[in-house]
Amino acid sequence: MSEEFLKVARAAREAAAELAPLPRAPKDRALRAVADALVARTAEIVEANAKDVEQAREQGTSEAMIDRLRLDAARVAAVADAVRQVADLPDPVGEVVRGGTLPNGLELRQLRVPLGVIGIIYEGRPNVTVDAAALCLKSGNAVLLRGSSSAYASNTALVRVMQEALEGTEVPAGAVQLVPGRSRDSVKELMRARGLVDVLIPRGGASLINSVVEESTVPVIETGVGNCHVYVDADADLGLAVEILLNAKTQRPSVCNAAETFLVHADVAAAFLPRALAALAEAGVTVHGDERVARHGDVVPATEDDFRAEYLSLDIAAAVVDSLEDAVAHIRRYGSAHTDAIVTRSQQAARRFVALVDSAAVAVNASTRFTDGGEFGFGAEIGISTQKLHARGPMGLPELTSTKWVYTGEGHLRTSEGSVLARPDQG
Amino acid sequence: MSEEFLKVARAAREAAAELAPLPRAPKDRALRAVADALVARTAEIVEANAKDVEQAREQGTSEAMIDRLRLDAARVAAVADAVRQVADLPDPVGEVVRGGTLPNGLELRQLRVPLGVIGIIYEGRPNVTVDAAALCLKSGNAVLLRGSSSAYASNTALVRVMQEALEGTEVPAGAVQLVPGRSRDSVKELMRARGLVDVLIPRGGASLINSVVEESTVPVIETGVGNCHVYVDADADLGLAVEILLNAKTQRPSVCNAAETFLVHADVAAAFLPRALAALAEAGVTVHGDERVARHGDVVPATEDDFRAEYLSLDIAAAVVDSLEDAVAHIRRYGSAHTDAIVTRSQQAARRFVALVDSAAVAVNASTRFTDGGEFGFGAEIGISTQKLHARGPMGLPELTSTKWVYTGEGHLRTSEGSVLARPDQG
Repeated sequence: MSEEFLKVARAAREAAAELAPLPRAPKDRALRAVADALVARTAEIVEANAKDVEQAREQGTSEAMIDRLRLDAARVAAVADAVRQVADLPDPVGEVVRGGTLPNGLELRQLRVPLGVIGIIYEGRPNVTVDAAALCLKSGNAVLLRGSSSAYASNTALVRVMQEALEGTEVPAGAVQLVPGRSRDSVKELMRARGLVDVLIPRGGASLINSVVEESTVPVIETGVGNCHVYVDADADLGLAVEILLNAKTQRPSVCNAAETFLVHADVAAAFLPRALAALAEAGVTVHGDERVARHGDVVPATEDDFRAEYLSLDIAAAVVDSLEDAVAHIRRYGSAHTDAIVTRSQQAARRFVALVDSAAVAVNASTRFTDGGEFGFGAEIGISTQKLHARGPMGLPELTSTKWVYTGEGHLRTSEGSVLARPDQG
Repeated sequence: MSEEFLKVARAAREAAAELAPLPRAPKDRALRAVADALVARTAEIVEANAKDVEQAREQGTSEAMIDRLRLDAARVAAVADAVRQVADLPDPVGEVVRGGTLPNGLELRQLRVPLGVIGIIYEGRPNVTVDAAALCLKSGNAVLLRGSSSAYASNTALVRVMQEALEGTEVPAGAVQLVPGRSRDSVKELMRARGLVDVLIPRGGASLINSVVEESTVPVIETGVGNCHVYVDADADLGLAVEILLNAKTQRPSVCNAAETFLVHADVAAAFLPRALAALAEAGVTVHGDERVARHGDVVPATEDDFRAEYLSLDIAAAVVDSLEDAVAHIRRYGSAHTDAIVTRSQQAARRFVALVDSAAVAVNASTRFTDGGEFGFGAEIGISTQKLHARGPMGLPELTSTKWVYTGEGHLRTSEGSVLARPDQG
């Protein structure tokens, strides 16, 4: 491991130990100081960002990507506002998750504690640098940030401003660290830093996430790959189904909770598909349908790859299924276990779909777009976990914590016959 | 991957899908059928076990190890009883962890669901084969068991009896699988079975656990390495401290929650150490002490390795520290973050120790031996996690589950201005 990497990782480790026992008030004060500094030093941040934008333009980056990268005064102000919102959220640390008095009189509590040092690997927008840092600090964690190399100058400026703002607070400045270097080597170092980093959260496309999962010896929380389904049941209200499908596909096609496939029960295919295909075509959506879908309108023939695709565009795969169970089997086979929806008037079908679909979220008569920390009332979200360990679905502040058991006695000893109390010197 | 391994892993995967939605009653009936079959087929199990014992003897295995391996009618009956106790425990699956109605009317619930397929890698006693299978089945999971090759005949018989007992129940027989083969290759296959296995739980010594953590691409829950500390504070009642130390070290030295190091505040070293060293010597304990401990009695000089050691024997390391903070620093540096205890009459010292020690369990005026699923009232325990993700400390049935979010609406669509309802065809 390079000296530069070890230096920041060890600094984060030390800061984490200092930060963990802090109660809410000093953490909130520190976050507000960070927000103020971001606004006060907007010019410096925008100037650094201009270098990234210039370089991106020289490299022929698309205007859409450049727009994602760009920071201006309004965007910096929005980033600072988001930090203030995190300061307003309740602190998960110290929450008593379970507790009670054991039969032998030991008082037992399970308390929420910070995870320690969290590594975040991300692409795209530089605002993630600040959002992720704020969520980690609020939950008592130090953070190692590894953003896109295309935003390196912006991220360097943002981290410098945050660290300098923390200098005057009780939160150690070392708790926010940018992983040095633009090369892929620094990602590898982060993935191999077992013992220094407690968890890695990759945020980005499927290829980034898969490579982290494969190579990391640090525990990983997978996020954000969404091949979401809408299943239109035999008992569906077809008007509702068309609108839910359209909303799930088109309201924001580039996000992980957008629908990428719809499945229709054979009994309603003839009634549903002509309406649905017309509505989708009108919304500019290209349908990649199987043979049974193709009987009811113009579609592009679907391949296996279409059913696995996370399009993130105005494309959707479609198939006709013979039963709810076949819909579930399709979802299990091709899905990413993010969010899958059923549209039905049948209580029994809804219950069965919910029981059988093994995904982070299951929606009944609602758009898949609601799987979101903000919609769920978490106030903020670090990502959407599509794995089963530790956290599943939208991750808010409690998902950035672990727990610690504390038991308090008065000289409790364990014997093969049960507990006894030690004899004190002074009664 | 070998065909034999893929066959059992796929069978477990299929069984897991069938088992997951089952409610409690059929799972309990199946567990009781397993218990009955174990008792009814005791002769067959003991006969298979005799082969393992014979082979162990030929290989010159110690009598202590052979005793661990041996099954007789009484031990099989005890194993069956443990299965019945698991049947009596509440079912974590389906529990509503959080839930409510969102401002837009969506009903949101977070439900406990099984993890899927759990791989257990273990050493030693064949009873773990049945205990682990019972806990996995009760929590709705299929299990891939990889026990010690020295117990292969016993484990094969136990799994056969369990599978045949399940044949007559609603729980699919494929939900319990023995990983075929005695070689290390089968452990490697289990560690590389990402997508087929949802989590691996290694149970055993530090070297087993470290090799699994290093090599596995399947998420791992680390268990059971314990370098536990007892810190005797300046404000400790010394009578209490001696008894807690003796209990933590000697009540059962071979287990992970036994103490392996004690630390004494310099202010009470002269008063405490002569008493403690005498009591430990009388109990047959060898003390590996630093120079400041050596001033107060006969000890073996301690090395760095002693402070890192998980002795699991009548040995203990000892050091004098100048402050509570130095004790915490020692524990952070050398400990395994399992269980660390403070003995003190000071409320402030207790509060500070609890806040600063970052371990799965912190004990105040109690023996470290209480960190145990049974003592905590879990009814049963699959192991003690010393990692921070997913589960920390003793793991009972809820720790063998994940969660799923379910949201139910009446045509809820997401727009940039908030939620709206789709118009149904029939109102």
